[in-house]
Amino acid sequence: MDEITFAVVGTGGIGRRALEVSQHKDALTPVAACDRHGTAIDFDGLDIDELLAATEGNIDNEVATDGGERTDGSRSSAELRSDGGAATADTEGGVKQHGENKGVVASEQAQSSEDSIQDVIDHGDGIDAVLLALPNYEHDFIPRTADRFLEGGYSGVMIDVLKRSRVIDMLDERREAFEDAGITFICGAGATPGLLTGAAALAAQSFVEVTEIDIHWGVGLKSGYEDNRGTVREDIAHLPEYDIDTARNLSDEEIEAIIDDHDGVIEFEDMEHADDILLERAGICDAEDVIVGGILDVRSDEKPTTTTVSVTGRTFDGETATNTFQLGDETSMEANVNGPALGYLQTGVRRNRAGEYGVFGPAELMPGF
Amino acid sequence: MDEITFAVVGTGGIGRRALEVSQHKDALTPVAACDRHGTAIDFDGLDIDELLAATEGNIDNEVATDGGERTDGSRSSAELRSDGGAATADTEGGVKQHGENKGVVASEQAQSSEDSIQDVIDHGDGIDAVLLALPNYEHDFIPRTADRFLEGGYSGVMIDVLKRSRVIDMLDERREAFEDAGITFICGAGATPGLLTGAAALAAQSFVEVTEIDIHWGVGLKSGYEDNRGTVREDIAHLPEYDIDTARNLSDEEIEAIIDDHDGVIEFEDMEHADDILLERAGICDAEDVIVGGILDVRSDEKPTTTTVSVTGRTFDGETATNTFQLGDETSMEANVNGPALGYLQTGVRRNRAGEYGVFGPAELMPGF
Repeated sequence: MDEITFAVVGTGGIGRRALEVSQHKDALTPVAACDRHGTAIDFDGLDIDELLAATEGNIDNEVATDGGERTDGSRSSAELRSDGGAATADTEGGVKQHGENKGVVASEQAQSSEDSIQDVIDHGDGIDAVLLALPNYEHDFIPRTADRFLEGGYSGVMIDVLKRSRVIDMLDERREAFEDAGITFICGAGATPGLLTGAAALAAQSFVEVTEIDIHWGVGLKSGYEDNRGTVREDIAHLPEYDIDTARNLSDEEIEAIIDDHDGVIEFEDMEHADDILLERAGICDAEDVIVGGILDVRSDEKPTTTTVSVTGRTFDGETATNTFQLGDETSMEANVNGPALGYLQTGVRRNRAGEYGVFGPAELMPGF
Repeated sequence: MDEITFAVVGTGGIGRRALEVSQHKDALTPVAACDRHGTAIDFDGLDIDELLAATEGNIDNEVATDGGERTDGSRSSAELRSDGGAATADTEGGVKQHGENKGVVASEQAQSSEDSIQDVIDHGDGIDAVLLALPNYEHDFIPRTADRFLEGGYSGVMIDVLKRSRVIDMLDERREAFEDAGITFICGAGATPGLLTGAAALAAQSFVEVTEIDIHWGVGLKSGYEDNRGTVREDIAHLPEYDIDTARNLSDEEIEAIIDDHDGVIEFEDMEHADDILLERAGICDAEDVIVGGILDVRSDEKPTTTTVSVTGRTFDGETATNTFQLGDETSMEANVNGPALGYLQTGVRRNRAGEYGVFGPAELMPGF
């Protein structure tokens, strides 16, 4: 494949690991990275070692501490602009800071910016794909970021690693605009839904009718916890007592209390998750036939259960069977998010170069069912 | 997806089952089917029930009995032309006949033909994809059939379910011609390499380096044996004592003797198989790191072992792990060949409509690695 240039918007846990994993991919050249404090752009390729080392202690947990101020969502696109509200949030502890500069600006390759997303848009001509590594903003943040790229005349791939059904619906409303602009938007491209719905789509190929897809994940997040608070918050939103809004308004202390209540191991059953609608979009099965659950253990790096996708269906010759896909327990959440995200990013660029625009789920990029 | 019209060339076990499975796929309309005796074409969609019922006892095992006459391969493209040589083969028992007409001609939708492949080529404008369901011809038969489609001005998808490395090399030699003609050729799209290398490519997404891929299949083929003699012959060619040429020259009695010698259960270790080069083409790992083996039991419908793909690799964060993909034991070989073949066919048409031409392996149609 020809070389692909890409930008990472958001340099929290996912964005940073995506940059790190991309160093192992010959076809990929990271040319831009930004957070709400600034932007690093270099079309010869960013020096990822320097960037990660300089910012290692500067992980911005994004809206982790400022959700309480934002019930209407109206200011969320300002979050990456270092405007007053965001700056206030920083001083409240949203950014771990170890030096003079906050977030990505600690890297000598970065410059502080009032509007770092606009910096990326302004350089969009040289960027084949934009990875939106923003797991924890309001649900309309990604769609509104997409609007900014549309307004800025961007043409290329946009990709997120979200697991929220309603975001996909909002992106779908922009399908025509994406098609007109030449944007290929791939949603939900991380471990789940990304990797696991892709596996489900492939496993479905043995069948003429899929009757149930059971996705059950295990994550051990002890050493990765600090880097992935946003993901933990996102998971808590799936507990029966919470939703996206109430989870966003939790303080760090409240989250710790929830974790303590569960002795560090939180089990999720029948989660509301984008896997179901992404599999339905791809024609694999009805959304209601998809079951998603998992176990998160933030006090151990061992997975509490083996991540398993079980696809049960009926074959053309009348048998019922279950095909399974299992991730080795030693694969970290980070490995399973970022490899697939970059894999789907490459697929997206290929589709984009062939003139296929619009909104796609990972399972739609698998062989047809 | 828009509707896809397709033709099946070869109505042995694989071709017939592909037609049957396609009835479960809304997006697919079978419009042509041919064997060396004749051609059935109907752009409103073939009546598959009638075609399968009328020809159920008329399975043409293709070159199963006439290989001995053909050491130079020069006549192989005549095999579908009902020429003298093929007709002689028929009377020797190459076709099971139960009625006046041989092969597909037993269907009221078919007409006998001197050159049924040319019939399909002549109607190529209305055919989005051609499934070459011809597992057991000389190794250059598929490439030379492709040449005929090229000469005939065909533009669309061609897809085979072969598992021979050298055929892929021969198709690669035609890549430029395919690109000029607008042909998207997908090779090896059945169960293995198709489904299983696809699964391996997806499972590889957790890793930055894949160190070993172990593909181990189990096939129980008691009731399907008569329909799949060609596949059994193809497998025997992978035993250490045989190769493609010597296996083709075996009489039915000699094959039965080999099966008896193994008490009906033949085990294959470290097979020469196209999986390795297809995975290397897709950039997943070196061909030499792919191990393929399996167990074929022709005296039971139970699988002698669970078909398993094990992908071992190193994650970006330094762990070594193995992701696995397993097919339910109740899925028949036919289900695992034909579902993926039709799935990749749909992918191929999508690629073709987007202007992507050339030669692709199944794993290349997965997310980039």
